[in-house]
Amino acid sequence: MGRIVKLSSVERFDGAVDVIVCGLGGAGVCAALEASAAGSSVLVLERFSAGGGSTQMSACEMYLGGNGGTTLQRELGFEDSSENFRNYLEACFGDYADPAKVDAFVDGAAEHFDWMEAQGVPYKRAYFDGRDVVALTGDSLQYTGNERAWPFTERSAAVPRGHLPADAGHSGGKVLMGVLLENARTCTGITIRCDARVRSLIVDDAGAVCGVAAKIDNRLHYFFAHQGVVLSAGGFIMNEQMTRQHIAGLDGCAMRHGNPGDTGDGILLGTAAGGHAINMGEAFVCVAHYPPPQLTFGIFVNEQGQRFLNEDTYLARMGDAVMRQTNQRAFMFIDNRNFARPAYQEHAQIVAVGETVEEVERESGLPGGALQQTVAFYNAHAANGQDPLFHKHADWLSPFDEPPFALVDYSLATLRPAVFTLGGLDTLPSGEVLTPDRDIVAGLYAAGRTAAGIPRTSAGYASGMSVADATFTGRRAGRAAAGRDRRPSPGGV
Amino acid sequence: MGRIVKLSSVERFDGAVDVIVCGLGGAGVCAALEASAAGSSVLVLERFSAGGGSTQMSACEMYLGGNGGTTLQRELGFEDSSENFRNYLEACFGDYADPAKVDAFVDGAAEHFDWMEAQGVPYKRAYFDGRDVVALTGDSLQYTGNERAWPFTERSAAVPRGHLPADAGHSGGKVLMGVLLENARTCTGITIRCDARVRSLIVDDAGAVCGVAAKIDNRLHYFFAHQGVVLSAGGFIMNEQMTRQHIAGLDGCAMRHGNPGDTGDGILLGTAAGGHAINMGEAFVCVAHYPPPQLTFGIFVNEQGQRFLNEDTYLARMGDAVMRQTNQRAFMFIDNRNFARPAYQEHAQIVAVGETVEEVERESGLPGGALQQTVAFYNAHAANGQDPLFHKHADWLSPFDEPPFALVDYSLATLRPAVFTLGGLDTLPSGEVLTPDRDIVAGLYAAGRTAAGIPRTSAGYASGMSVADATFTGRRAGRAAAGRDRRPSPGGV
Repeated sequence: MGRIVKLSSVERFDGAVDVIVCGLGGAGVCAALEASAAGSSVLVLERFSAGGGSTQMSACEMYLGGNGGTTLQRELGFEDSSENFRNYLEACFGDYADPAKVDAFVDGAAEHFDWMEAQGVPYKRAYFDGRDVVALTGDSLQYTGNERAWPFTERSAAVPRGHLPADAGHSGGKVLMGVLLENARTCTGITIRCDARVRSLIVDDAGAVCGVAAKIDNRLHYFFAHQGVVLSAGGFIMNEQMTRQHIAGLDGCAMRHGNPGDTGDGILLGTAAGGHAINMGEAFVCVAHYPPPQLTFGIFVNEQGQRFLNEDTYLARMGDAVMRQTNQRAFMFIDNRNFARPAYQEHAQIVAVGETVEEVERESGLPGGALQQTVAFYNAHAANGQDPLFHKHADWLSPFDEPPFALVDYSLATLRPAVFTLGGLDTLPSGEVLTPDRDIVAGLYAAGRTAAGIPRTSAGYASGMSVADATFTGRRAGRAAAGRDRRPSPGGV
Repeated sequence: MGRIVKLSSVERFDGAVDVIVCGLGGAGVCAALEASAAGSSVLVLERFSAGGGSTQMSACEMYLGGNGGTTLQRELGFEDSSENFRNYLEACFGDYADPAKVDAFVDGAAEHFDWMEAQGVPYKRAYFDGRDVVALTGDSLQYTGNERAWPFTERSAAVPRGHLPADAGHSGGKVLMGVLLENARTCTGITIRCDARVRSLIVDDAGAVCGVAAKIDNRLHYFFAHQGVVLSAGGFIMNEQMTRQHIAGLDGCAMRHGNPGDTGDGILLGTAAGGHAINMGEAFVCVAHYPPPQLTFGIFVNEQGQRFLNEDTYLARMGDAVMRQTNQRAFMFIDNRNFARPAYQEHAQIVAVGETVEEVERESGLPGGALQQTVAFYNAHAANGQDPLFHKHADWLSPFDEPPFALVDYSLATLRPAVFTLGGLDTLPSGEVLTPDRDIVAGLYAAGRTAAGIPRTSAGYASGMSVADATFTGRRAGRAAAGRDRRPSPGGV
């Protein structure tokens, strides 16, 4: 069967509710909770035996700020004006950004934190000042992106915006989703059906979406939606055909990062109903050159032995930069004082060790003289606390003067970095799905990575943007669907 | 009205033919000629008052080879095995390539040249050995891409593959399209209607495409197609909404290169009928750092004063590389011996001139010492005919030893480089349009830049790939449509 079923062809419905939510990850559970809170009856259909999605697999940082600061930011002494937050997001994504979505997010992010606390997700009034991907100290606020790195520092005052569930470390997803899923489970207005894969959208003669067909117990079930259908089925990193077609440059060298259901179902259902998938060539690429933070004292060079960015950037900006180098090859040069294994890149390989830079260079096979020149130039300026090429912060500048020195391979083919997709359906801030002409597909909403949201490129990404965006847009999609006039059931329901 | 019209809703048809071709550029005219040659009646609908498309605006090089060489290659003494041609194309596009399309093109390109000569397009048995974008000597064979540049030389023997109409220079498009359009005009089986913009595809209840609705004289006309519809309406570089959505990173700094009809109509019609647009984030970016060829002796540096590629590459590979540098900034450093204005980049600006590299560096504002270091390293190796960093060919290596020296700004924001799109509908080599599941959309074909074809990235592009691909795929789409069983007309035709 196709992804579109005509309403007139449905002989019998198995049920009717106000709002149907397809996919019970971070976006879906928030859509369900908000639609229900607005008075709508909700049916959630989840492909697997339990909800959670990629949000549950994550540390569940949420990237939030604006309005003077979230409650957590303010209570910890950080001010974050909406202008400052917007400036930062604009520095991140430039022409890639959807201005209307950025506005809505900047306006609503602080309230979103309060909503999450009101749901019962615990946050600790404690700030982690280190440089790490996820604070393992139990603290709930930390820097997670490029806020303290050039060129972002020229556009926006540095403020920590990563909001982590208390005492959760890498298990924040289980904490946050545990709370939200339990709230949904105990909400009388929400029915959750697991092991129910949505195969088709039901559309009326005018093209409006008014239900879904889902495979349950090996039989197609037809559900009517009085108000609307929310697609919250994740991205497409697990769909090998789609990644080949849209992110070809990464297809051969990456580890697919997500849950097994990230097969693009929501995007494909949405486009079949007239939606438009955009930003499909962009993906998050993780080259985690820290922690431990001391690795930031190292420098990265390409196969020409030249530096190519400030090493105090966020890991996905490093991933983007490595991807742009010749043959996608890159190496960290570091001295004995700061040498360590990178915590999250087990495949990083030492390619050369030596008592002098020349010795390392010779052993590495890099062009003779290039690395020596790069290190000498770096050392001379680092001694003065300066990095005239890439403006790495003085906190991370130190001449390499303690042999032995090492060169560690961070090439993409060696690392096989974690990658996930950043393209999806074009939507309004309300979640309403748009056609290529930006007309609304009536009755259809998308949220989370099924839509193209706030984060648009690896170079501008920060940890917490996906979970913040997914939960934020899920809520809005649920509310928007619940605000729609109810259409009467067809016969037979 | 929408892009899809139901067959059952069409009350009266204004005509019926076997094959309808939408767009009379290089792809469309070839589709029409081949469908007609196969015995089908053809209606061509062209949006503007005359055909030609972007093919006619171009120099009309065709990038061809394989099978031991085209007739022109062989008669000029060049051998080009299919393996060599395939190796080159694989080096160009890697994971981005569609293997089935590459196979079909490698197999058929030599025959395609003979077909074009048989149509009456004149080619001169004369080879141009220089480094130029388009030979202005009247010669018909030249190098047009990265064939002689690293790393391509490691994968494939260098062979010239640009086939230019004789004595045409930049007017090759008028020559080639002049011949083909006249052949189509005088072909009794082909009807051409200009000032006819296709607005919708007509589909039957099974989703098969069986006609079009076109605006002619401010009234919608409905045409039935017994066999099929070919979309050959160009790319989407003139559609500002689509470029913002799909090639955001270039949207702000580029000059849109194409004909005014490159508004994505074909792609949008195709996706509305169930087709799938792929490779949409990729675009050709022109940074024409030559001719004159002597400019190739210069070196390019980024805003860190570092080189970033071998300067003997093709201009679109340079465009891709500049795009990847910090702030998309790049500069050519060159000495008095080889200084010249670049022929095709009128906006390139001299930012510094000096008697020493240091003087140039100081005046330019580049980080102190970086450019000097880069030039010293380059000079030392160039004196030995070597470029250990990027392997520029020895023919273009010469130490900078004749002051004054100059630094010329080739940053994207300064140049506003010509850009056109490389994404489009996913198709089989036959031109049949594919759904996201790679099922065939019955009755629908796409060719030229309405489809994602052979050229997929700027980094791998060579002049002549678009015209070769457009005309080649146009022919195949026309033949495939003409090979389909005829369905009877509905009532009223």
